[in-house]
Amino acid sequence: MAEMRNKQVILKDYVSGFPKESDMNIVDSTITLKLPQGSNDVVLLKNLYLSCDPYMRIRMTKDTTAELGALTPGFPLTGFGVSKVVESGHPDYKKDDLVWGITNWEEYSLVPTTGMYKIEHNDVPLSYYIGILGMLGLTAYVGFFELGSPKKGENVYVSAASSAVGQLVGQFAKLHGCYVVGSAGTKEKVDLLKNKFGYDEAFNYKEEPDLNAALKRYFPEGIDIYFENVGGKTLDAVLLNMKLHGRIPVSGMISQYNLTQPEGVTNLAQIIYKRIRFEGFVISDYFHLYTKFLEFVLPLIREGKIVYVEDIAEGLENGPAALIGLYSGRNVGKQVVVVAHE
Amino acid sequence: MAEMRNKQVILKDYVSGFPKESDMNIVDSTITLKLPQGSNDVVLLKNLYLSCDPYMRIRMTKDTTAELGALTPGFPLTGFGVSKVVESGHPDYKKDDLVWGITNWEEYSLVPTTGMYKIEHNDVPLSYYIGILGMLGLTAYVGFFELGSPKKGENVYVSAASSAVGQLVGQFAKLHGCYVVGSAGTKEKVDLLKNKFGYDEAFNYKEEPDLNAALKRYFPEGIDIYFENVGGKTLDAVLLNMKLHGRIPVSGMISQYNLTQPEGVTNLAQIIYKRIRFEGFVISDYFHLYTKFLEFVLPLIREGKIVYVEDIAEGLENGPAALIGLYSGRNVGKQVVVVAHE
Repeated sequence: MAEMRNKQVILKDYVSGFPKESDMNIVDSTITLKLPQGSNDVVLLKNLYLSCDPYMRIRMTKDTTAELGALTPGFPLTGFGVSKVVESGHPDYKKDDLVWGITNWEEYSLVPTTGMYKIEHNDVPLSYYIGILGMLGLTAYVGFFELGSPKKGENVYVSAASSAVGQLVGQFAKLHGCYVVGSAGTKEKVDLLKNKFGYDEAFNYKEEPDLNAALKRYFPEGIDIYFENVGGKTLDAVLLNMKLHGRIPVSGMISQYNLTQPEGVTNLAQIIYKRIRFEGFVISDYFHLYTKFLEFVLPLIREGKIVYVEDIAEGLENGPAALIGLYSGRNVGKQVVVVAHE
Repeated sequence: MAEMRNKQVILKDYVSGFPKESDMNIVDSTITLKLPQGSNDVVLLKNLYLSCDPYMRIRMTKDTTAELGALTPGFPLTGFGVSKVVESGHPDYKKDDLVWGITNWEEYSLVPTTGMYKIEHNDVPLSYYIGILGMLGLTAYVGFFELGSPKKGENVYVSAASSAVGQLVGQFAKLHGCYVVGSAGTKEKVDLLKNKFGYDEAFNYKEEPDLNAALKRYFPEGIDIYFENVGGKTLDAVLLNMKLHGRIPVSGMISQYNLTQPEGVTNLAQIIYKRIRFEGFVISDYFHLYTKFLEFVLPLIREGKIVYVEDIAEGLENGPAALIGLYSGRNVGKQVVVVAHE
């Protein structure tokens, strides 16, 4: 039975502070492309696209929050991916089926079918299933529509606004008739926000020494919905600029994941004065809305009413650099790693 | 027409840091006990009981949050009170009616009838209308039942647990079949929590060098509902101990009101991992529930199923000391100032 090379990205050890490329090793392992006997609930996958997502840093910390669970040093990273079935022990999956779900950072993976979903619509780029058509799209949809309870004409602020999730929140908000302002960290991203994603206004937060003043300029009447992606000082400034009964769906806090001591948020009393609902969510709780979401978003993609910008890194060996680039904001749009083109 | 002495508590100037007795003056003013002609929407009141509430400190800060509005130096403090109508320009109020609502810190007040409510049930202590039967009782009720969405058997933590609001939250939670732990700052208060209010457990937070460890001891399985009265470091420790899908209704943050630079809260990312709903509220938004609340709580008081502990300061001249005592935790239970016994 043929042994194949199986290149892998291995976590060397737990990380503290900012992750570096050297925290991961690229190794050439081998794999037998055959399911072990009696494997009814597993599939052997050829991985095509892997997803780089901010939350992955949290799993690189020893004794991290139990809800996410830590990765294991010496083993490959895990995360969302799009893959092709090589062999299946489960009747619902057949050879050559395309699937998306949790897989490993390697060329071939033997994974359980739990959390694996068949791709039914392939008239759109397959990599979309780890972005707009996967958990990230659902995150934007649930955070904005379910937790944000938006009304037409309301004022929406999105931080990390060109990110995998942020770019969608901005476009959903515009389609819903809201006034939308986004911030990002480079001129290129700010241009994208205005010219590609249709944000009403956009600014480079690195050029704003006083974020509170910037927000007052863009939201003289205050913010109804803040889609929280970053946390820390940004959140503190936003709290001063929320409107009465504002909503803050909390999708992530990327600015905090690499700090050994997170920044203190000092303006939380605003949550009382302004009757703010500040609510965290983890998208796996909302998977029951996935079919409804697909029915909403697929036509918008096909009609060109929603665009999705990806930042493609070619080759598994470039995965570590792509992943750590998230934390310095090097990526423009959704960061994808191509392991193989089908 | 008789001029009467009208003793007043005047705010001398805006306060920064902890308030002191010397921030207020006791002055003997005079008042004519007669309504000005054509006053249709005002009443002349003889004040009986005045309420000392933590939020009052916020109004002593210049340029305070617009939602609460600052007091005016040179004028009496304002706040909740129970009063007797001396003369009325409004057909709904008659001489000798008992009312509760917003009044001034003085013996006699000329105030608008907006926000003034007639006392219909006087088989209970009148001072209860600035406590359990007023906005504070409603605060405990709304925060716990409406925002907290409690289920029987859930774990509830109350900080400032013997306070005007806290003592009620604990009792409501016990009546609802929850496990309830409270913290307070003296042995006397901790004894009250256990022996009078029926908390399952209680502890003195000043004797716990590691609040996180204390909460782990009392809540090995985590906290479902944290009724937030204090903010700051307590909130930070609580966030580490919340259960999945926990709720934090935010009623107040007394530990922060006197700080020129509030403490930073660093564990907010827990709100994501644990899908926590952290929601501020201001009780005036829920006044439509007041009648429903009275129907709920009056029978409980009459049957002795709910108790209410008050800390009574006799005489308006002792008002300033009573008020500032809130911020060092000197009061035991609801702090009331008696201006006159009917």
